[in-house]
Amino acid sequence: MNKYQNSNYPINERVEELMSHMSLKEKVGQLNQKLYGWNAYIKSSNGYELTKTFKEHVSKFDGIGALYGLFRADPWSGVDFSNGISVEDSAVVTNMVQKYIKENTRLGIPVLISEECPHGQQTLDSTLFPTNIGSGASWNPELQQEVSSNVAEELSARGVHLGLVSTLDIMRDPRWGRTEECFSEDTYLTSKMTEAVVRGMQGEDEVPKIIPVLKHFIAQGAGVGGHNSGPALIGERELREVFLPPMKAGVEAGALACMAAYNEIDGVPCHANQQLLTEILRKEWKFNGIVMADGNALDRLLMLTGEKELAAAYALRAGVDLSLWDDVYLTIEQGVKKGKINMELVDQAVSRVLFLKFKLGLFDNQCFVDEDRPAMVVGCDKFKKSSLEMARQSIVLLKNDENILPLNKNGNRIAVIGPNADNLYNMLGDYTPPQRKDSGVTILDGIHSLADPDTEVMYARGCGIRDKSKSDFNNAKEIARKSDVAVVVLGGSSTRDFGMEFEDNGAVKSYDETEMDCGENVDVANLNLGGVQEELVMEICATGTPVIVVLIQGRPHSIPWIAKNCKAILSGWYPGPQGGQAIAEVLFGNISPNGKLPVSMPISSMQLPVYYNYKNSGAKEDYHDMDGKALYPFGHGLSYTSFEFNFANDKTEEITLADLNSSKKLHITVEVKNTGNRDGYEVVQLYTKDLQASVTQRIKELKGLNKVWVKAGETKIITFMLGHEGLAIWNIAMNPEVEPGTVRLMVGGSSNTVISKDLLVKN
Amino acid sequence: MNKYQNSNYPINERVEELMSHMSLKEKVGQLNQKLYGWNAYIKSSNGYELTKTFKEHVSKFDGIGALYGLFRADPWSGVDFSNGISVEDSAVVTNMVQKYIKENTRLGIPVLISEECPHGQQTLDSTLFPTNIGSGASWNPELQQEVSSNVAEELSARGVHLGLVSTLDIMRDPRWGRTEECFSEDTYLTSKMTEAVVRGMQGEDEVPKIIPVLKHFIAQGAGVGGHNSGPALIGERELREVFLPPMKAGVEAGALACMAAYNEIDGVPCHANQQLLTEILRKEWKFNGIVMADGNALDRLLMLTGEKELAAAYALRAGVDLSLWDDVYLTIEQGVKKGKINMELVDQAVSRVLFLKFKLGLFDNQCFVDEDRPAMVVGCDKFKKSSLEMARQSIVLLKNDENILPLNKNGNRIAVIGPNADNLYNMLGDYTPPQRKDSGVTILDGIHSLADPDTEVMYARGCGIRDKSKSDFNNAKEIARKSDVAVVVLGGSSTRDFGMEFEDNGAVKSYDETEMDCGENVDVANLNLGGVQEELVMEICATGTPVIVVLIQGRPHSIPWIAKNCKAILSGWYPGPQGGQAIAEVLFGNISPNGKLPVSMPISSMQLPVYYNYKNSGAKEDYHDMDGKALYPFGHGLSYTSFEFNFANDKTEEITLADLNSSKKLHITVEVKNTGNRDGYEVVQLYTKDLQASVTQRIKELKGLNKVWVKAGETKIITFMLGHEGLAIWNIAMNPEVEPGTVRLMVGGSSNTVISKDLLVKN
Repeated sequence: MNKYQNSNYPINERVEELMSHMSLKEKVGQLNQKLYGWNAYIKSSNGYELTKTFKEHVSKFDGIGALYGLFRADPWSGVDFSNGISVEDSAVVTNMVQKYIKENTRLGIPVLISEECPHGQQTLDSTLFPTNIGSGASWNPELQQEVSSNVAEELSARGVHLGLVSTLDIMRDPRWGRTEECFSEDTYLTSKMTEAVVRGMQGEDEVPKIIPVLKHFIAQGAGVGGHNSGPALIGERELREVFLPPMKAGVEAGALACMAAYNEIDGVPCHANQQLLTEILRKEWKFNGIVMADGNALDRLLMLTGEKELAAAYALRAGVDLSLWDDVYLTIEQGVKKGKINMELVDQAVSRVLFLKFKLGLFDNQCFVDEDRPAMVVGCDKFKKSSLEMARQSIVLLKNDENILPLNKNGNRIAVIGPNADNLYNMLGDYTPPQRKDSGVTILDGIHSLADPDTEVMYARGCGIRDKSKSDFNNAKEIARKSDVAVVVLGGSSTRDFGMEFEDNGAVKSYDETEMDCGENVDVANLNLGGVQEELVMEICATGTPVIVVLIQGRPHSIPWIAKNCKAILSGWYPGPQGGQAIAEVLFGNISPNGKLPVSMPISSMQLPVYYNYKNSGAKEDYHDMDGKALYPFGHGLSYTSFEFNFANDKTEEITLADLNSSKKLHITVEVKNTGNRDGYEVVQLYTKDLQASVTQRIKELKGLNKVWVKAGETKIITFMLGHEGLAIWNIAMNPEVEPGTVRLMVGGSSNTVISKDLLVKN
Repeated sequence: MNKYQNSNYPINERVEELMSHMSLKEKVGQLNQKLYGWNAYIKSSNGYELTKTFKEHVSKFDGIGALYGLFRADPWSGVDFSNGISVEDSAVVTNMVQKYIKENTRLGIPVLISEECPHGQQTLDSTLFPTNIGSGASWNPELQQEVSSNVAEELSARGVHLGLVSTLDIMRDPRWGRTEECFSEDTYLTSKMTEAVVRGMQGEDEVPKIIPVLKHFIAQGAGVGGHNSGPALIGERELREVFLPPMKAGVEAGALACMAAYNEIDGVPCHANQQLLTEILRKEWKFNGIVMADGNALDRLLMLTGEKELAAAYALRAGVDLSLWDDVYLTIEQGVKKGKINMELVDQAVSRVLFLKFKLGLFDNQCFVDEDRPAMVVGCDKFKKSSLEMARQSIVLLKNDENILPLNKNGNRIAVIGPNADNLYNMLGDYTPPQRKDSGVTILDGIHSLADPDTEVMYARGCGIRDKSKSDFNNAKEIARKSDVAVVVLGGSSTRDFGMEFEDNGAVKSYDETEMDCGENVDVANLNLGGVQEELVMEICATGTPVIVVLIQGRPHSIPWIAKNCKAILSGWYPGPQGGQAIAEVLFGNISPNGKLPVSMPISSMQLPVYYNYKNSGAKEDYHDMDGKALYPFGHGLSYTSFEFNFANDKTEEITLADLNSSKKLHITVEVKNTGNRDGYEVVQLYTKDLQASVTQRIKELKGLNKVWVKAGETKIITFMLGHEGLAIWNIAMNPEVEPGTVRLMVGGSSNTVISKDLLVKN
């Protein structure tokens, strides 16, 4: 037995020994996952067979580092219920893949199976959850950890090892179509959610359950103009203050993989950015996992080099270990032979990929998985309940004039109107697999199921998302006129349709893609609701029936008219398949809404950028013709009850630099009183502003959050802790230091409703 | 006689010796110009008297460094024809100021008189010129040099020494109200214009005619959201590529003063930015003039320090020499005494201020000026002709369907309509002094004067700039219906009115400020034409009469409807007092239009930023709902004739790095043929793109321009020269180096109409 096969040795020694047996060709194989996984198998009446393409692919480099997208089902892969891998057969197929590679390559190095799982795995019958912008609105990292753990259970049961998931992107421009994949516009909230994803997916055992590939490192949300993968023109301090902390938090939580981002930063593509991928990520933060390339991003380095081998050299030198489906890393062997690529860099990347395989136990007893387990785990009730709970906590009540919400459950006539009232796909977001009929609860379904039998529920679609037709307007107005209240469900759509028909296979047909207005590469200039949606709501309002607007959306839309003229507004984001149930529960008051805006809602895309933690440079913040601020601010979210905040004491807090430098933390104690007459959650938010600093400071920065259940009339005591990391700034010398002076502490249930007092940091 | 009084010694020695006589208090006086100059004198029936305030101010520090705004006349200073300094008395007053200071301070150090002159001096009866965005549209640095020389003559005649003038601001977001003060969105064009301003104002003698204080150093145009003095979040490479070159060009042309910008760059306010004001400006570029603070910018440093003395220390350390009207530098004496401020930094700043005074000859024979000269120089015909010529060259013909322009001069019935058709102030821009009646030519005036007697010219205002009233619509439609053509003059306004009445003093009353939509601190979110202007033009078009739109504007407005529906469009920017004459000459074909867009014209502010030299990162550039590109691109501008471009040879050009490093330049020869049937100017534009580079490159970058007069049928030969500076990039190590590889060379009459060939830079 070789040393690498012996689990008694430390991983590093096993890696080193294994590499000593490997040829250059085999090493290059470990750095690539060129083949689309959905081309690796064919489903036939006899079961699943590995394709010739797959076998050739494996033999080309005598082994492969990873296989991407074996399970990916969506219009792009062309995988649906007719040709995809069933839940029951999932582990059979992954075991077959591993077995083939074990038996048909010289060294039998197991393969990493990597899959998309932005909000549940993007494959057949997986449990889907709200998209990140919704999870971010929950302000509940513990719940996110549970959700991520569920996703990991499903992936793991199927024999998957790497789960690609957006957690790092900070939303700074909602024109960006991937806004739905961002937890927030805020660094701290995003960091907490990233930690939760890492902990939830990797689990607490020595062998990680699943390794999340955290996307995207970094600053993709800073892309100019909200253009997907647009260049980030930002400087190092902006990068460090806003964009880097979530990955740092991920590393501290044990993250073992991330994906480099498409964008460049100040002229240097992330995939060629040694400063970022090596100096900061590995040397500064001590990350020891792998950096995966994004699809096409290595090939795009030809913009710099004009040729592939040099592009590979750039990326290896920067610190990219594993290619996705690009060509550039296939040229490494030639590159090394021609002297363009340093062999040490190749070895370094290979050793990192192998490290993960050892870490996951693939050389020991974790390579083959229990073939009965997927059917027990995937889509189980427990996970659906998690999805429902996250949907519940993600709903943000933006406005509730005259407490029109909650609605009476009985005796009402309710008109349910709008393009997102009864459209399951539009609730699910981008990166969604085909769905079975009735696999989810639309808003109309939810209202039907919760309303008492004597409540009359009428429905009209009214209009499309982007379609200009008003042919259903009269119908919609008609039912509105007959009703006591109209629930108008508007918003966006990230539903793709590349022409597939699912109906023959028991699935709902995918939506018309001309209706899309969100998702990857679907960036918009105009944040207004698409098509004739705003006209629809205007006409419904004109009937005199009170209007409640529900927004199903992947990005904040601009809704100044609705904000002014409708009685109540709920933002449900893309709430996942249980979203209709959750929204109906809020509408009828089964639960009190408790989500908070994870992003600012702008008045218009003309006033972008709009985020709460801007810098006030002393000049006017408003435009001559428009407010500069958001329509609804970050952290905002109403409840059916009300809360009052007080500091436990009014004294100025004090702490010394010496204490902070020796890891002491300041305790800030806040009393939260439920002053209403029903129980409910409140998200208590701590913001700070450093009033004396060597560099300029944002008007406030989130530094603590605590989602707490408070009974009617009860007062709960919350303690926030602020230590060196929370109080440090990237000072004039670009070091993270706490500077002496006064720091304002602000607490409340929104970024603009706060009590405050000062903290004196003493020298 | 002291050494400093002896002009035979070198300036540095004179400065040193003078400083050896000075007390700390006297030194602090040299670093301040706290008093608003308009408070320094009172005009009475007997002439002018210096005020008690002025005398106290002088005695406070026993001398003052400079006096700002002695001549400034505008609503803010409250100076108009009733209380301002007449042309005839200008030098009398400056001589009186110098005499007082000479006789009433211990050392008698002359004072620098500093004045605003963004487009002519902001004082009574000065010659006004087009604002910078118009001058930028001329693409004619030689003409700018003449204009700047004229401005300097007027300033100099009045006894002024420092002329504050925006030249450095690069327009990257047209929401910014100071867009009108920018020459361009482009670095190269702005650099050429900055050189022209320096050369024109300083002149060629050893003693500068006037020292321009170049504004603003730096990156104010990168302010986030187009907010005035908003933070610039950019990184060092973006800063060096886009924003720094104009000042570097200015320094190389001999610039002796600049003003620090309000904004911060990546967390560091320019006024506290040692890297910028000392490392780059002085050490890297060898600038040896003064850095003046902007008004309030030093006081805003209290955002960092919480107190004034430390703020003064920050600014002195950074390299700010002379305060404008702030309080912070008044505390230097205390700050030094308390040990907060390093005396060497104070001495350094004082020595720079004194250096300028010696350089200007103020200690020799240049302190007092000829009292008869202002009346001979100010407002002379020669300068007015320059202003007219700049106005002519600044007009950009955006569209000319069916060659509707030029108009027949005779026999036509012309309807002249719109809020900017007959409003002199709206043609002048921000920082404009009160004007005498009939001191300029409006568009209506110009059309009247150029049209033949048998041409009927009718006029209706139609609507206001921002006012929503349509009460004059019918009138406007009525005259349009009766006419062969309608010239609709729309746009913006930077006209201020702080409630002054000028009519009693022979001046036109200033415009209603509620009509403003541009100028300093007048940033807008929406780039559409204000008020009901677009509705007006729609209704005029609906009459069926062909419509020619003339835009008088300080920023590019969004005009997609007009671009699609009107026959011809001219952008006249703010063309100055002769603008109406120039526009009429273009309308009637006396001249062929020859301006080119100095900025991109966006479709909408929803698609910002829009500039031609963006980086293509490989993803979609268009939005899902809107083009990503400009409506009219940078460099665009039609003519009444046409041009064809050819390279003199088709061969790939070659040059070696060694040649470039030894200052050799590549000569690129282009033939420009006038293929139309009238003589005219064309602006030949050279763009490059480096195809192999260690950092990402913009899709193209302007690297040469040549405005050339070509007769009908004639071919002219233009030679561009490209050397190390033109081909260098800020490489991965942030050094300005030429990298070997292929560079694409593109030439044409617009940024999007180009012929191209390659240049091989050989190792």
